[in-house]
Amino acid sequence: MSIHAQLPEEVQVYEVGPRDGLQNEKQNIPTEAKVRFIDLLSAAGLPVIEVTSFVRPGSIPQLADSEEVVKRIKTTAGIRYTALVPNERGLARVTGLFESKSGDGALPLQGIAVFTAASETFSRKNTNASIAETFERFEPVISSARSAGLWVRGYVSTAFGCPYEGDVPARAVTEVASRLLELGVEEVAVSDTIGVATPAQVEEIIGAVADVTGIERIALHFHDTRGTALANVLAGLLLGVTTFDSSAGGLGGCPYAPGAAGNLATEDLVYMLHGLGIRTGINLEKVVEASKYLSVIRGQAPASRYFQAAIS
Amino acid sequence: MSIHAQLPEEVQVYEVGPRDGLQNEKQNIPTEAKVRFIDLLSAAGLPVIEVTSFVRPGSIPQLADSEEVVKRIKTTAGIRYTALVPNERGLARVTGLFESKSGDGALPLQGIAVFTAASETFSRKNTNASIAETFERFEPVISSARSAGLWVRGYVSTAFGCPYEGDVPARAVTEVASRLLELGVEEVAVSDTIGVATPAQVEEIIGAVADVTGIERIALHFHDTRGTALANVLAGLLLGVTTFDSSAGGLGGCPYAPGAAGNLATEDLVYMLHGLGIRTGINLEKVVEASKYLSVIRGQAPASRYFQAAIS
Repeated sequence: MSIHAQLPEEVQVYEVGPRDGLQNEKQNIPTEAKVRFIDLLSAAGLPVIEVTSFVRPGSIPQLADSEEVVKRIKTTAGIRYTALVPNERGLARVTGLFESKSGDGALPLQGIAVFTAASETFSRKNTNASIAETFERFEPVISSARSAGLWVRGYVSTAFGCPYEGDVPARAVTEVASRLLELGVEEVAVSDTIGVATPAQVEEIIGAVADVTGIERIALHFHDTRGTALANVLAGLLLGVTTFDSSAGGLGGCPYAPGAAGNLATEDLVYMLHGLGIRTGINLEKVVEASKYLSVIRGQAPASRYFQAAIS
Repeated sequence: MSIHAQLPEEVQVYEVGPRDGLQNEKQNIPTEAKVRFIDLLSAAGLPVIEVTSFVRPGSIPQLADSEEVVKRIKTTAGIRYTALVPNERGLARVTGLFESKSGDGALPLQGIAVFTAASETFSRKNTNASIAETFERFEPVISSARSAGLWVRGYVSTAFGCPYEGDVPARAVTEVASRLLELGVEEVAVSDTIGVATPAQVEEIIGAVADVTGIERIALHFHDTRGTALANVLAGLLLGVTTFDSSAGGLGGCPYAPGAAGNLATEDLVYMLHGLGIRTGINLEKVVEASKYLSVIRGQAPASRYFQAAIS
């Protein structure tokens, strides 16, 4: 086999820092800083940016300023801006934004994401709903979003392991993924929420899911909690996956392992992709600038290995 | 292709923490602590441990206590203990140790390692000798060591990139590796000294070297400076490499990027290998104990991602 011969020519990096990263941030980050962070990510050429989450403001106070953030970011043509939307109330807030923006014609968001799990216990603890109930909740969300012309992604969390149940069978992941596609979701983000995956497991789970969904519908979302994220990305690339999630600087500690690394860092991902000769359209040094900006606001060095090497 | 089907059943982890890790440590680590650290690594089941370096004591003061360390560690049958030996004077110190130990019959070291580079500029800056001169220096070292019944490894540093020259051609790596084997070295450690490698490059360089040396003579030595080390290990495994270097806790900052991550962490490597179903004979939690012990002495948390997740 040849690694080189099996690699795609181009990969889409899906930036989750402003949402998945910041939702775990303890200290309050001012709206202005979030807007600037997102604008710097746009300037770095990230093709998709998940900018916030329209959850109930009380549940994640850090993201209670979703409307403000979306209204104030400088959107760039060609970049897809998305937001997590847990329910119909959340979607109403998104469509409300569209109405207020209707004057200039440019929609501030082009897509939404819904969130469920492959593990029943995680779903109940995280969203206070069974997996079946999460589907009931976002069935109308997906259909209304599609009617409004929005692109829709579905997260399948704990697809490689659950902090409560341990191993998660490939069948559970496949069922949730195919159900999401039936409801009209365009992309399924198979997620290693607690950062336990290793490459052979990626092959096993993603192979099984792709048999049902097709590989082109799958995005991979890794956390680098145990350092395996880039090895898992390599396994995904060899399987034909071409969309990978990451967060600038590696923002987003794991709530189940305080102090541990969070999402795979965008810098580390892009460094490897470019080293593999894969096009991303991203300016790596500008991602470092975005991370640097936020690290000053947070008063904390980013977890990204590449970042640490680049600034030292 | 199948990742799983191409993986080896067993891998040998070559622990370099006490040598490659500590040689970059600024603060003085007491001999007693080094001995305890190595004993904990033995207890964790590391099959090969490079315990020190017999360089001129003035050049790396941290490792000036080589004799003391070797005399005081508790050696375990079945584990290969090695030391870096730069020249004949260093080898004389090693064989001197054998004579002083001859009473009980057990030799404290079973192997040595010599060190050269694939990049001419790095060789001159690092060892004050051209590549050709390093070969002149250790030609008698290798032959005497072999006569003394010692196993010999040769490091080829900067095999994936040089801090001065940038890219290093595969041909340069192959030439140095095959020269080492001609001189009687049993294993060639192809080393990413500055942590720049990506997986397709591993395939290119190692493929070229293996065409000449055979894959079974190659060990891979990665630094995790930009987070790609485990992805590179995966590439190495798929090529058939079965010996990988690492340091407990990820000890060993890169001298060219202060603050950046050092050697690939033993914990991260072993976590991935075990996750891939590969046997190592290593007790991962005992490696964490060894790293924890040294991190208390150093007053600094290890860079290992797995360690950080495990202790939090």
